[in-house]
Amino acid sequence: MEIDCDRPRILMWGLGAMGSGMASVLWDNPGVKIVAAVDKRPSIVGKDLGELIGKPTTSIKVTSDIQGAFNSKPDIVLLSTSSFVKDVVSDIEIALKHHAHVLTIAEEMAYPWAASSELADRIDCLAKRQGKTVLGTGINPGFVLDSLIIALTGVCTDVKHIKGKRVNDLAPFGPTVMQTQGVGTTPEEFTKGVESGEIVGHVGFKQSLFLIGKTLGWDIDQVVEDLDPIITKVKRQTPYITVEPGKVAGCRHRAKAYSKGEEVICFEHPQQICPQAEGGKTGDYITITGNPPVSLAIEPEIPGGTGTIALAVNMVPLVLKGPSGLLTMADLPIPRLFYTPSLSKTRW
Amino acid sequence: MEIDCDRPRILMWGLGAMGSGMASVLWDNPGVKIVAAVDKRPSIVGKDLGELIGKPTTSIKVTSDIQGAFNSKPDIVLLSTSSFVKDVVSDIEIALKHHAHVLTIAEEMAYPWAASSELADRIDCLAKRQGKTVLGTGINPGFVLDSLIIALTGVCTDVKHIKGKRVNDLAPFGPTVMQTQGVGTTPEEFTKGVESGEIVGHVGFKQSLFLIGKTLGWDIDQVVEDLDPIITKVKRQTPYITVEPGKVAGCRHRAKAYSKGEEVICFEHPQQICPQAEGGKTGDYITITGNPPVSLAIEPEIPGGTGTIALAVNMVPLVLKGPSGLLTMADLPIPRLFYTPSLSKTRW
Repeated sequence: MEIDCDRPRILMWGLGAMGSGMASVLWDNPGVKIVAAVDKRPSIVGKDLGELIGKPTTSIKVTSDIQGAFNSKPDIVLLSTSSFVKDVVSDIEIALKHHAHVLTIAEEMAYPWAASSELADRIDCLAKRQGKTVLGTGINPGFVLDSLIIALTGVCTDVKHIKGKRVNDLAPFGPTVMQTQGVGTTPEEFTKGVESGEIVGHVGFKQSLFLIGKTLGWDIDQVVEDLDPIITKVKRQTPYITVEPGKVAGCRHRAKAYSKGEEVICFEHPQQICPQAEGGKTGDYITITGNPPVSLAIEPEIPGGTGTIALAVNMVPLVLKGPSGLLTMADLPIPRLFYTPSLSKTRW
Repeated sequence: MEIDCDRPRILMWGLGAMGSGMASVLWDNPGVKIVAAVDKRPSIVGKDLGELIGKPTTSIKVTSDIQGAFNSKPDIVLLSTSSFVKDVVSDIEIALKHHAHVLTIAEEMAYPWAASSELADRIDCLAKRQGKTVLGTGINPGFVLDSLIIALTGVCTDVKHIKGKRVNDLAPFGPTVMQTQGVGTTPEEFTKGVESGEIVGHVGFKQSLFLIGKTLGWDIDQVVEDLDPIITKVKRQTPYITVEPGKVAGCRHRAKAYSKGEEVICFEHPQQICPQAEGGKTGDYITITGNPPVSLAIEPEIPGGTGTIALAVNMVPLVLKGPSGLLTMADLPIPRLFYTPSLSKTRW
């Protein structure tokens, strides 16, 4: 058993489904120590972290006092508060000013230059000045449609075109996801929802496309996205919603990237409830047209929730040892399981 | 167009099928410069490198004078002379003493500690003293049954067991490979060949197993390997060999790794000519039993020759920027295509 002062100290910032999931996994890892938990939601502020994540009672209470939380002197902050760069930039800056590394699952942080090169450069500059590492990760963006694709191009001597497709089932998700994907709407409502920005589809295509482009040295000069309703022919039902035939079961989101006018990457991510109701199967698919051609299938798809929790947790040791600055998954060594509960030992 | 002195200078050492293939790919890459070519085989010494690899004539002649070749001041050596640590260690030391990084496809160098921790430590020590990087890579070991598996464990919060299977077709290969896999022998001759060490199956299981174990922090305390003949029921034919029914079409090589008495990794690599003759299909398969479970298939398999050539070439920039010492694929950022001929530009 290692002594406490050798264990990296972690501040959990944001305790929604993802943040709580990470806290739960890290709690069982004897190689690290959660030292503080921050969330602004009154419903959980003051609650015991252990109770919140289904573990024994701890000395850690969820607090909304961010500055106070940093008295715990964390080595690293796991930030799970928002999807967007503009919403997490000030949180990241607070963490860096308190000399902590930052690992976030904010989708746009997987390649933040795609959302705002100004904000990304500002984070990079501060991270380097503080000698700390900032990384955005997650299952998608972060792995399936970018890191995994990039790794596969490593077995090629040439690549002409990349196709990526992720087919998943939204059945486990709640009302917020149903709304952002337009589940349960009529086709007309879907169209209006896309126009108004209420139906957004997948957040992360641009990040994955530009991360691949940057890493392979491809100039991506145009990205075209479209969102279509997936209209069900049969009744589909989840604990949260029932969708009758003729209504929208989900959103088929596509994105294409062009270089010098030629399509070089094509992504398709149909997100719907119960695709199996119409004989659909779920999976992650990558097709590289190149030398050699590569055709990969992961069936069923890597689940989004567990996958994102796992990547965030598993990248902790790599971020702690990483170079300073704002990094992407392509800058760090390949991901790997951090701690194996089944074998009850740790790399630390 | 960049000026020459900015382009990394490469010495090709070993110009068999793999070395020549790498030279050919690198020759078309404007971001690097091949400055010397070494091979000891009298049949090609003195020949023009360009002619040898099907390119225009160059000023580079294949030489057997190793010390002289280093007058070209290479930044990095691509070493493709042997599969075994004991056979490449002195070549690596020569390169390091001449202040060059080393990238080799010697199978045992993918995780050289598995073959000889003494020699591996000696290389690591010299590399660090010289401030240079040494890396072993290739498709297998190096990618399919190790790096790719390790990357997939990154989406898991727990892993209980890993299964890897690579099914390939030896039809494109020549007499040497036929001999080392026992193709064309009788079942009795196969058994004797395994006993005498003439039939070796796959070189690299131990490297992949221990690379995974080291990276995940698993103590691998036992490895069990077995080789069985794949006896064909139908006639199978390649340009090099014809195998009649009842004879051996290839070698089914299996390896299992145990930790604390429990099987944690199981590999299977049947190597045969024309598996499709009996309805078999080729592919790379990974099954992780864990949370979440992950089931991956790449069909057909990533071809061994092109894949190994590609990985060696593609890891060049990562090795040039890598930390000093003897590294593995798990120590460096994820592989990625170095240069894209189809898009005619480079990351340099």
